[in-house]
Amino acid sequence: MDASEFRRRGKEMVDYVADYMEGIEGRQVYPDVEPGYLRPLIPTTAPQEPDTFEDIINDVEKIIMPGVTHWHSPYFFAYFPTASSYPAMLADMLCGAIGCIGFSWAASPACTELETVMMDWLGKMLQLPEAFLAGNAGEGGGVIQGSASEATLVALLAARTKVTRRLQAASPGLTQATIMEKLVAYSSDQVVATLGTTSCCSFDNLLEVGPICIKEDVWLHIDAAYAGSAFICPEFRPLLNGVEFADSFNFNPHKWLLVNFDCSAMWVKKRTDLTGAFKLDPVYLKHSHQDSGLITDYRHWQLPLGRRFRSLKMWFVFRMYGIKGLQAYIRKHVQLSHEFESLVQQDPRFEICAEVTLGLVCFRLKGSNKLTEALLERINNAKKIHLVPCHLRDKFVLRFAICSRTVESAHVQLAWEHIRGLATELLKAEKE
Amino acid sequence: MDASEFRRRGKEMVDYVADYMEGIEGRQVYPDVEPGYLRPLIPTTAPQEPDTFEDIINDVEKIIMPGVTHWHSPYFFAYFPTASSYPAMLADMLCGAIGCIGFSWAASPACTELETVMMDWLGKMLQLPEAFLAGNAGEGGGVIQGSASEATLVALLAARTKVTRRLQAASPGLTQATIMEKLVAYSSDQVVATLGTTSCCSFDNLLEVGPICIKEDVWLHIDAAYAGSAFICPEFRPLLNGVEFADSFNFNPHKWLLVNFDCSAMWVKKRTDLTGAFKLDPVYLKHSHQDSGLITDYRHWQLPLGRRFRSLKMWFVFRMYGIKGLQAYIRKHVQLSHEFESLVQQDPRFEICAEVTLGLVCFRLKGSNKLTEALLERINNAKKIHLVPCHLRDKFVLRFAICSRTVESAHVQLAWEHIRGLATELLKAEKE
Repeated sequence: MDASEFRRRGKEMVDYVADYMEGIEGRQVYPDVEPGYLRPLIPTTAPQEPDTFEDIINDVEKIIMPGVTHWHSPYFFAYFPTASSYPAMLADMLCGAIGCIGFSWAASPACTELETVMMDWLGKMLQLPEAFLAGNAGEGGGVIQGSASEATLVALLAARTKVTRRLQAASPGLTQATIMEKLVAYSSDQVVATLGTTSCCSFDNLLEVGPICIKEDVWLHIDAAYAGSAFICPEFRPLLNGVEFADSFNFNPHKWLLVNFDCSAMWVKKRTDLTGAFKLDPVYLKHSHQDSGLITDYRHWQLPLGRRFRSLKMWFVFRMYGIKGLQAYIRKHVQLSHEFESLVQQDPRFEICAEVTLGLVCFRLKGSNKLTEALLERINNAKKIHLVPCHLRDKFVLRFAICSRTVESAHVQLAWEHIRGLATELLKAEKE
Repeated sequence: MDASEFRRRGKEMVDYVADYMEGIEGRQVYPDVEPGYLRPLIPTTAPQEPDTFEDIINDVEKIIMPGVTHWHSPYFFAYFPTASSYPAMLADMLCGAIGCIGFSWAASPACTELETVMMDWLGKMLQLPEAFLAGNAGEGGGVIQGSASEATLVALLAARTKVTRRLQAASPGLTQATIMEKLVAYSSDQVVATLGTTSCCSFDNLLEVGPICIKEDVWLHIDAAYAGSAFICPEFRPLLNGVEFADSFNFNPHKWLLVNFDCSAMWVKKRTDLTGAFKLDPVYLKHSHQDSGLITDYRHWQLPLGRRFRSLKMWFVFRMYGIKGLQAYIRKHVQLSHEFESLVQQDPRFEICAEVTLGLVCFRLKGSNKLTEALLERINNAKKIHLVPCHLRDKFVLRFAICSRTVESAHVQLAWEHIRGLATELLKAEKE
């Protein structure tokens, strides 16, 4: 395929994407396929000779789409949102074309520098303490990781390296293994200090945990994977109070801030804590500026060597929405979850199971867990909406998460009517 | 931005991308910017109100492009190639639109199933032993990781879990720490068993290493990050002989197989070795099929929870090039590196420093390291081509890697004339 065919096919693909997004409400949110459905539909080996683009795009509708769970359908209320916006998609096209691998400053200066500045922009949007920002000469700064899991692992390894060095400096005879056996990573039953847990979006009290960590010289990593995006709104920012006690902080703009996956934002107060743990300097990656202290080589901040030009997505999204547009988006989702909450509260057969703070409502039918499990089975069999359950202590609970960029009050109302109807059928069947 | 504006802007972006690719030869391959160039060019905070798309796209040319190292320029001979092709870019647009997070089969069945089948396609293209394929009921199979570093880490953690369990089963009193202190990971000075090292593309002898690993019950992980793509050509496949002794094998189609970053292909013989080490099963990720043994939940195969629909890129690329097209692409690069090799050999001032097997030529000026270092400095200051050095034993060596999809004999010839000219100037200056 040459550039001129790409011009044609690329524009067809833009239309396909726009058609998909515009028509997504008409697609069944959860697919009908059974495990193993796909293999018989395609050849057992790659073709020797090229297939045509028409063949492939036809197969997308015929083979792929029937097996897709439509995360951006306004009837998708499962897990947590994954971000999707047109500006991010445009930026991703550009990112693919530039196609640089930004492991060092020299490997593509714009890739590194835009990332540092965008992480400062985002840090300021969250009113992070100055110590987390890179600025012109700060000791801290931000980096885009692929996922919150990676960010947590990076924080854990950095903390381990730091404490190991401290202990070995104090007692040079100590082996790494002896130290490792004694190291303890404290976490709640939802892992590390968390703002907005996956199950029910609960919040750890940083103002209690933080001072203890400072006193005991314990690395404090805060994970706000989902909830972090909300902190750009002043009314939700108090949930982040105590972040000033943390060594590292992470949340996922790729969840709720309209920046398509992957884009997990991580800040540290001391960049040398990361670069000390991960530094990798073979000759073929050396460049003339690296010892000048002026530049950032992001390969020392992460596990993989390679990295895409992901900050373009942030740049496009922040500029094309503006801070006000992003705040309005968060507020709309929170308002929709409260709307759903009040619908549930009006029906005496149901109960709300956790405080609704952001975009997640945890609810269940009053009575046995079996009853709510049976309701979920009916919901999932009907496939009109999609949601997933969780356990809160000993209770089986349904999670209704506001997810889609295009979800409106009407969809929430329809979803609730649907759930109510299934509950009525279920309770009737139970009586008979 | 609504769908109709996206149709317009998306098509403009397609043209921008095509223009960029078509005109890339005219751009200076390595930028002139100094560290810190970007920050003064953009505002210190995100805008409150939205910017226009025109503003942003203008800023791409004004602010971003001057700081880009053009990895897809035919004058880029640095590091190793990073893949770029139009079919992969088209697939990535679709991937962004579907925007599913494929951590479990249920989270988007097509995402999981296409990946399994594409990894089988690719495994067959490489003539991997049957044991590495998933097929309908195999114990092995493939997974797309983000990078070779992640694949290596996953293999290492899986190996550690496996041996720890074996030792604890034999001696239940052993603590994890005691075992950990005794564990040894063997590697060469280029890490794990490697086919095609970064410095000089050398090959470990798997037929020697493999049987020892089998005898001693040692996990053998093979990393062929760059070279792996070449094994789709029968004439290069012997380099992979001995893979039958390995527990896990990895290479990066995102380097040399025209599948844009990220796409690191990893196979294991026993998928239970991975799922045993990484299994994660909270209620909100459970689904009705997961205990049936029929399905794959890829979150158990990797470190992050989230994952994109990356197999679409493989599907588009394999089909639109066909195996023959991909083989022709590899062969062209290898031929160009031999062409460069013979040019170097014709100049008695230079020497070849390692056997040229695939697309990398390691060479230097005869004489002191200082001389070749000075040559590199002249090359990098001229910025007509871009390459990076390495150390081979005690020698400072230049790496000439065939990288760009569009590089032709004429570019290689020009690059060599340029290097020769700079060498002549240098040697003349040295004499004076």
